[in-house]
Amino acid sequence: RDVGRVLVTCPDRPGIVAAISGLLFRHGANITELQQYSTDPFGGTFFLRIEFHREDLAGELPAIEEGLARLAAGAATRWRVATPAVRQRVAIFVSKADHALQELLWRTHSGELEMDVRMVVSNHPDLGDAVAGWGIPYHHIPVTTETRDEAERRALALLAGQVDLVVLARYMQVLTPRFLAAFPDRIINIHHSFLPAFVGADPYSAAARRGVKLIGATAHYVTAELDAGPIIEQDIERVDHRHQVADLRRIGRHVERAVLARAVGWHTQDRVIVHSNTTIVFA
Amino acid sequence: RDVGRVLVTCPDRPGIVAAISGLLFRHGANITELQQYSTDPFGGTFFLRIEFHREDLAGELPAIEEGLARLAAGAATRWRVATPAVRQRVAIFVSKADHALQELLWRTHSGELEMDVRMVVSNHPDLGDAVAGWGIPYHHIPVTTETRDEAERRALALLAGQVDLVVLARYMQVLTPRFLAAFPDRIINIHHSFLPAFVGADPYSAAARRGVKLIGATAHYVTAELDAGPIIEQDIERVDHRHQVADLRRIGRHVERAVLARAVGWHTQDRVIVHSNTTIVFA
Amino acid sequence: RDVGRVLVTCPDRPGIVAAISGLLFRHGANITELQQYSTDPFGGTFFLRIEFHREDLAGELPAIEEGLARLAAGAATRWRVATPAVRQRVAIFVSKADHALQELLWRTHSGELEMDVRMVVSNHPDLGDAVAGWGIPYHHIPVTTETRDEAERRALALLAGQVDLVVLARYMQVLTPRFLAAFPDRIINIHHSFLPAFVGADPYSAAARRGVKLIGATAHYVTAELDAGPIIEQDIERVDHRHQVADLRRIGRHVERAVLARAVGWHTQDRVIVHSNTTIVFA
Amino acid sequence: RDVGRVLVTCPDRPGIVAAISGLLFRHGANITELQQYSTDPFGGTFFLRIEFHREDLAGELPAIEEGLARLAAGAATRWRVATPAVRQRVAIFVSKADHALQELLWRTHSGELEMDVRMVVSNHPDLGDAVAGWGIPYHHIPVTTETRDEAERRALALLAGQVDLVVLARYMQVLTPRFLAAFPDRIINIHHSFLPAFVGADPYSAAARRGVKLIGATAHYVTAELDAGPIIEQDIERVDHRHQVADLRRIGRHVERAVLARAVGWHTQDRVIVHSNTTIVFA
Repeated sequence: RDVGRVLVTCPDRPGIVAAISGLLFRHGANITELQQYSTDPFGGTFFLRIEFHREDLAGELPAIEEGLARLAAGAATRWRVATPAVRQRVAIFVSKADHALQELLWRTHSGELEMDVRMVVSNHPDLGDAVAGWGIPYHHIPVTTETRDEAERRALALLAGQVDLVVLARYMQVLTPRFLAAFPDRIINIHHSFLPAFVGADPYSAAARRGVKLIGATAHYVTAELDAGPIIEQDIERVDHRHQVADLRRIGRHVERAVLARAVGWHTQDRVIVHSNTTIVFA
Repeated sequence: RDVGRVLVTCPDRPGIVAAISGLLFRHGANITELQQYSTDPFGGTFFLRIEFHREDLAGELPAIEEGLARLAAGAATRWRVATPAVRQRVAIFVSKADHALQELLWRTHSGELEMDVRMVVSNHPDLGDAVAGWGIPYHHIPVTTETRDEAERRALALLAGQVDLVVLARYMQVLTPRFLAAFPDRIINIHHSFLPAFVGADPYSAAARRGVKLIGATAHYVTAELDAGPIIEQDIERVDHRHQVADLRRIGRHVERAVLARAVGWHTQDRVIVHSNTTIVFA
Repeated sequence: RDVGRVLVTCPDRPGIVAAISGLLFRHGANITELQQYSTDPFGGTFFLRIEFHREDLAGELPAIEEGLARLAAGAATRWRVATPAVRQRVAIFVSKADHALQELLWRTHSGELEMDVRMVVSNHPDLGDAVAGWGIPYHHIPVTTETRDEAERRALALLAGQVDLVVLARYMQVLTPRFLAAFPDRIINIHHSFLPAFVGADPYSAAARRGVKLIGATAHYVTAELDAGPIIEQDIERVDHRHQVADLRRIGRHVERAVLARAVGWHTQDRVIVHSNTTIVFA
Repeated sequence: RDVGRVLVTCPDRPGIVAAISGLLFRHGANITELQQYSTDPFGGTFFLRIEFHREDLAGELPAIEEGLARLAAGAATRWRVATPAVRQRVAIFVSKADHALQELLWRTHSGELEMDVRMVVSNHPDLGDAVAGWGIPYHHIPVTTETRDEAERRALALLAGQVDLVVLARYMQVLTPRFLAAFPDRIINIHHSFLPAFVGADPYSAAARRGVKLIGATAHYVTAELDAGPIIEQDIERVDHRHQVADLRRIGRHVERAVLARAVGWHTQDRVIVHSNTTIVFA
C-alpha cells in the first residue's frame, strides 16, 4: 500500500505543521491522519504524527526523506518515516501462562494486529504445542540463576537482525541491561497490576491483602528499573471481597491480554512516542 | 486571551492542511491543537479544527478571515473562526428534575464549562429557588396543549438575540419546527436512554420491561424527528435484576448529567461538527 | 466435589429461607453461597440460589431432594438441585467468524468455563481445522432455503440426549420453533448490538448510520421472536466518528466474545433464572 | 418504616443462616434481602446481612435482639440490628474544594443518600455560603501547626453525641489518633488516587510525572497509617498524554465525588463490614 507515516519530535515553534504539510503536498501526498501535541506551546516539546497516501510511494520516498532532513537541520529534531507495508517483526517471550500469547497470535491471525511474529521464546517448554499450531518457531531457552547470562546470549543471537520489537507476554524473568540496550524503547512488557501500585512479584496477592476494589494491568516499555518504564496503556476490572487471589488471577488475565494487545497494536502502527519517562499515544 | 479556533468542512483533496496551516503561520499564529478527519481520503468530506494562539489576535483576525475566505472560494467549503474569549450564551430549559440543571450550573461556576448561562426557562415553577441561588434569571412559562403556541412564542422572544445555544436539561415538552428552525444544530437535548433504544416517553419503564443489563443516556442535537437527531455523546451504567423503575431513574440521573455536561462542554469549545445525521467530535 | 446447588422459584412469603436453610442444616450441609431476590416482598415472586457443601453428597442427595419436594408441595414452587461435579454438555453453533468460538474453547481449556463442549456445529466448513486443534468433533451441516428443514433435523438428531445447552456463537441462521422447543431457556445467542437497539441483520451498519458513540453486544436466550428473548448480559465499547463499519465489526468482536463467555459461565453455574422475559442473574 | 437490618460476623460453621432466618421467621419477619460471605467455609469468618420487614417492628425489636444475643452467646460473634428509620447523623469535613461536599448535599437533598447531615466543619471559611444555602450549620475551625490540638478538641466537642459518621470530603488536614479513636471505622475519607498508588499529598502531580493512563479515587476508612485504611470503593477515569496536572484535578473531581458518595451510601445502609484491613461490601 502506498501509505507512509511521518513521526517528528522537536522543540515547539510556529510553522512546523505548515512546513511539513507543505512539503508533503509538494511531493503529491494526501494527508489521511494528523495528530500533534505540545507539552507547552511556548518553549515545550512538539510531537507530530502524519499518515499520508501517495501513489507510487516507494519512488518518492527518498525525496520526501531528503526534504524532511533539510527541514530538521539545525533544530534538535528527531524524525522518521515509516511504511506500514513493511510489517514490524516481533518476538514474543512467554513463560507458562498462555493467555497473553494466544491473544496476540489470534489478533495477528485475524488481521487486527498488523505485524510479523517471527518467533516465540520461552524459558519453559509448556507452550510449544500451542505455538506450533500457529506455524511459528518456538525456542525453548531454559533460564536458571547460573545459566541466565548464557541464556540471554542465546536469545540475543536469535533476535539479532531478525526482530524490531520484543513483547514480554507474561515472561517471568528479569532482563539484563545488556538485553535492554539492544532494544531501546522496543521491549513491551505486561505487568499484572495498575502501576505504580504493586510493583514486583505476585501483585495479585498484594492486591488481595490490600483489599482493592479494582485490579489492573499495565503495558509499558521496559527500562532498567523494575516496572518503572514509560506506560503505554492501562486498564482495570472491578472486583469485590468475594474474589480471592486465584479469582484475581483469573479475572486479571482478561485485562492483561486486552491491555497488552492494544499497546502492541499502537506501537506497531507507530502511534507511540516516548518522552522522558512517559508516552505520547496518538491512538 | 489571544486564542482562535478555525473550523472547516470541505470536500477532501490534497493540500488543505498545508494551505490553512501556511496561512496561519504567515499571520503569526502558533497552532496549539489540530484535529482532522476525512470520511474518505478519496472524494469524501474533510473536517478540520485548529486551535491557535496569536499575540493581539483581535487586530489580526480580519486578515486571517479574509485569507480563509479566499482559500474557501470556489470549493464547497464551510468555515468559521471562533474566539473563546467571547463565551457562548446559553439558555437552559428544564421541567421539574434538577440534576442535569444543577450539574451544568455547578460546572459553569467551577470554571469547567466556559459558557455564559443567560437564563433558565421552565414550564414549572419548582426549580426557581434553586436557580435564584446561582443568581441567574428564571422564567416560568407554563405550557398546556392550548397555550403551547403562545408559550413557545414567549420563549423565542426571550431568546432572540440573547442566546447562542439552547440546552434541554430534562425539559419534558416537545418543541415545534418553528422553534427548531431558530436554533439549527444549536439545541442539545439529553435523552434518558441509550438511543436508538427506547425512543420516546418513559424509557426507564421500557428498559425495566425489556430487562436490559445496562441503562444509558444520550445527548443529541434536536431535529424534527423525535429523539432522532445527531448524537453527540452517550454513556451507560450497569444495572441488574434488583433494580426496579425507580432505581433505574435514580441511577440514570448520574449518567444523564455527566453525558449532557460533556456534550455541552464539547459544543461550547467548538469541538462538534454535524455531518448528515451524525457528529464529528474532536474531543 | 461434594457441592450442590438449590434453585427455587416460588410465590414470596415469610419463612422460605428459614425452611430451606433449616432443611439443609438438618442434612449436614454447610451453605457457602446464598442469594435471593423478590420482585415484591408482598405477593411477588421469590428466587433463591444456595450453593452448599456436604461430605458424601451423593449419598444424601435423595433425602435432600425429598425434603425439598415436601416443602414445595402445595405452593406454586419450581425447584431443582444441580451438582457441578456433573458438567453441563454444550454444543456450539458457528458460521464463519471464529472469535466467539475461540474464546469459549480457550476459556473451557483454561478451566475458567466448567463445561463439556461435546461438538461444534456449523453451516460452513471454514472453522473445521481450528476446532480439530482442540480435539472436538466438528459437524458441517450446510443450510440453504431448501434444505433448512432437513438440516435442522440433522442437527437435532446430533444433539438429542447429548447436550444440555446450545450456544450460538455468531451462528447466522434463524432457528425454527421446533428447534427452540427442544431446548427451552437453554439456547444462548450473542447478538452484536446493545439490544433492543439494532434488532436483526447487520447491526454494525445500522450503528454506523445512526452515529452512535457506543457499540454493544447482548447475550440472550433465544425465543420465537427475533432478538427479543430474555437478556442475560450486555456490555459496550466506546467508538467515535473515525470508526467505520469495518472498525465497528473489529472492535465489536471483543465485546461479543466477552459478553457471551460471561453469559455462558453464569448459565453453566446455574446462576441464571428466567422470569417472564427477563433474567435473574445471581452473579 | 418497619424495616430492620441484622449484621453478623462470626466464625463460619453450618447452621448460621438456618438459626437466624428461623429466629426472624418465628418473630414474624419477612426477609427482603440477604447476603452472606465466608472467607473460608472451613474455619473462616462468616459475614451476614439481612434486611427484613416486620409489622410494628418497634414492639418486636427487643425480643429479636434478645434472640440474637442468645444465639451469639458462647461463639465469638459480633452482631447488631440497625433500623433505617433512624437515620445516621453525619458531619462533613471540608477545606476549600466544594465538589465532594456539594455532591453529598445534593444526593441527601434528592433522597438518594438517606442520612441526616448535622453539620459541616471546615478549616477555611470559603464554603460557608454554599452550605448556608442548604440550611446546614457550618463551623469554621481554623487549623495551624500551633492550634492543631485545640482545633481538634473543638471539633470533637461539636461532634460528641451528635454524630454517627464523619466524612472527610477533601479535608486537607491529618487527624490525630485521639480523633480516630473517637470514631473507629466511622470516618470515611476520599483520597484522590487509586490507592495504594500515590499515597500522600498531591497525587495528581505524582500521577502526571509517572505518566499513568488512568487516574482514580479511593474511599476508605481512616486509620492511624496515612491512606492505608480499609478500602470501601474505588473507581477510575481514563486520561492521556494531553492531560496536565490541572486537567487531572478537574477530571479527578468527578471520580472523587462519585466514589465518595457511593461509599457513604453503602455505609449508611449498613452494607459495609470491616474485616482486618479490608471491607466486605454487601452492595
